[in-house]
Amino acid sequence: MAVYTEIPDAELAEYLKRYDIGELHSLKGIAEGVENSNYLLSTDAGLHILTLYEKRVKKADLPFFLGLKDHLAENGVICPRPIPMRDGETLGELAERPSAIISFLDGNSVKRSNPSHCEQVGTALAQMHLAGEGFELSRENSLSLKDWEPLFNMSGRQTETVAMGLSAMIRDELAFLQEHWPSDLPTGIIHADLFPDNVFFLKGELSGLIDFYFACNDILVYDVAICLNAWCFEPDNSFNVTKAAKLLRGYNAVRALSDAEANALPILCRGAALRFLLTRLYDWLNVPIGALVTPKDPSEYIEKLRFHRHVQSPSEYGIDIK
Amino acid sequence: MAVYTEIPDAELAEYLKRYDIGELHSLKGIAEGVENSNYLLSTDAGLHILTLYEKRVKKADLPFFLGLKDHLAENGVICPRPIPMRDGETLGELAERPSAIISFLDGNSVKRSNPSHCEQVGTALAQMHLAGEGFELSRENSLSLKDWEPLFNMSGRQTETVAMGLSAMIRDELAFLQEHWPSDLPTGIIHADLFPDNVFFLKGELSGLIDFYFACNDILVYDVAICLNAWCFEPDNSFNVTKAAKLLRGYNAVRALSDAEANALPILCRGAALRFLLTRLYDWLNVPIGALVTPKDPSEYIEKLRFHRHVQSPSEYGIDIK
Repeated sequence: MAVYTEIPDAELAEYLKRYDIGELHSLKGIAEGVENSNYLLSTDAGLHILTLYEKRVKKADLPFFLGLKDHLAENGVICPRPIPMRDGETLGELAERPSAIISFLDGNSVKRSNPSHCEQVGTALAQMHLAGEGFELSRENSLSLKDWEPLFNMSGRQTETVAMGLSAMIRDELAFLQEHWPSDLPTGIIHADLFPDNVFFLKGELSGLIDFYFACNDILVYDVAICLNAWCFEPDNSFNVTKAAKLLRGYNAVRALSDAEANALPILCRGAALRFLLTRLYDWLNVPIGALVTPKDPSEYIEKLRFHRHVQSPSEYGIDIK
Repeated sequence: MAVYTEIPDAELAEYLKRYDIGELHSLKGIAEGVENSNYLLSTDAGLHILTLYEKRVKKADLPFFLGLKDHLAENGVICPRPIPMRDGETLGELAERPSAIISFLDGNSVKRSNPSHCEQVGTALAQMHLAGEGFELSRENSLSLKDWEPLFNMSGRQTETVAMGLSAMIRDELAFLQEHWPSDLPTGIIHADLFPDNVFFLKGELSGLIDFYFACNDILVYDVAICLNAWCFEPDNSFNVTKAAKLLRGYNAVRALSDAEANALPILCRGAALRFLLTRLYDWLNVPIGALVTPKDPSEYIEKLRFHRHVQSPSEYGIDIK
């Protein structure tokens, strides 16, 4: 298919010589990740993922992303790990693009999550937060509070074509969040996009976290809020408090949330819902001609935001307040 | 990505129980084949290809396609082989589509062929023709001489938008081929689409033939003509007689062409060029809105057809005439 960067045979063979992974068996473009070209690479040494970084990923961010995966794997998080070349480098160049070879993780994402999946996700997220401590690089969140208003302005008047009254709702929400967003909560490395697509399970057990290309430094419990939105709503947008309680229990068992963090959950969930509403809204209104991927419907996040606006206390997420 | 049929987790798990290939490790949609959804399926038993047959493949043809691969593999052709279920069936149903699990072949298609590749393709094609003998099913070629005129009529007046004078050239060619097409040459199972995409090599050696979804019963040496067109022209549409001679030598070494077959090569090459010109012309003029794949430029086959129209003798293909 024309959607992948073509890698010239001879160039690939030369590239592989820089690694200690033997000779090429096969290379297949895979339908995973929309920002990069990903290939399943089979060599004498087994399966790997070969990634070519296309335009949407900033080259300056690659040392952070590759270094982070290495640091997390070193500290017990099951995630894809960059394979070093013979000279120790992990970032190369292939087909005129930045490139890396990453370890292959067994497992599949689940299309329908159950409470056990949610608990395991909470646990893995907390482990990741602890493992991220001591990572020497940092990356600013490019989709944080201050970015939301300019992002919303890019959708502008067209916003009303998605839902009547949506502009007013978003402006109102932005004003509220700008006034009340917490500034004193613990920060660290967050995944920032831990949706079901990005968590693998094998025979019911979590087998890895993938896709760290939104990872950044931000409020740790904001990552929990993103997961509550991504994992604990049903297809009809009803909130499944059993799943939420499990997710929070899984998290708490590894890294206990402080009272301040728990109390901030409702506003952080609102912020997380708005952040995904705004990116989906923009993508929905700006589908490129001949696009390969149907954009995700922003309405889902309108519903989620509405839900959180009515939450009075973190106990409504199923968390036990001390 | 939205281009693949989503397979519900539970349904996949149930489906795999019908096979003796152990439990699921991972499933990844792969960018191979545009007619079907193909997935790389890893289980306790290793790598396989899982195929869901989408609309473009006729369900009635599936026993022919699956049976053929089995028959060819049984007779020494390296090609993907359907994995039988515990009850011996190879054709199943998954996600409301006909489905099959096929063995995984190591190797990659080459983007730039060299004369050695061409010789090996000739050899493999002849082996396939011999191995096809005795296969009990048959399938009519749905893109043979009689189909070309109706296919051309579907492009109609728009043809001239591709190249001035193209309609007249095609009408002229159709008339010539209808009058002179050979009717007494040996027939059998042909691949009918053995383009570089459909041949794998591993460390320079041919490691398998794939994609038998155009296979049918037709004139055997017509398959050779398709390969001469597909393998022996350079990107600038010049004919590489060294590659052609090698391809024919590879073929002859396994299945000797008769004089009648060799003498028919120029007209068969014209027919093969017209057949791909007509399908590409139609696809070019009928790109669906939001198409995933850029259609192939029909002009390439106008040039190939022009070349063959000037060929006076099969010796111009580098074949030794006895």
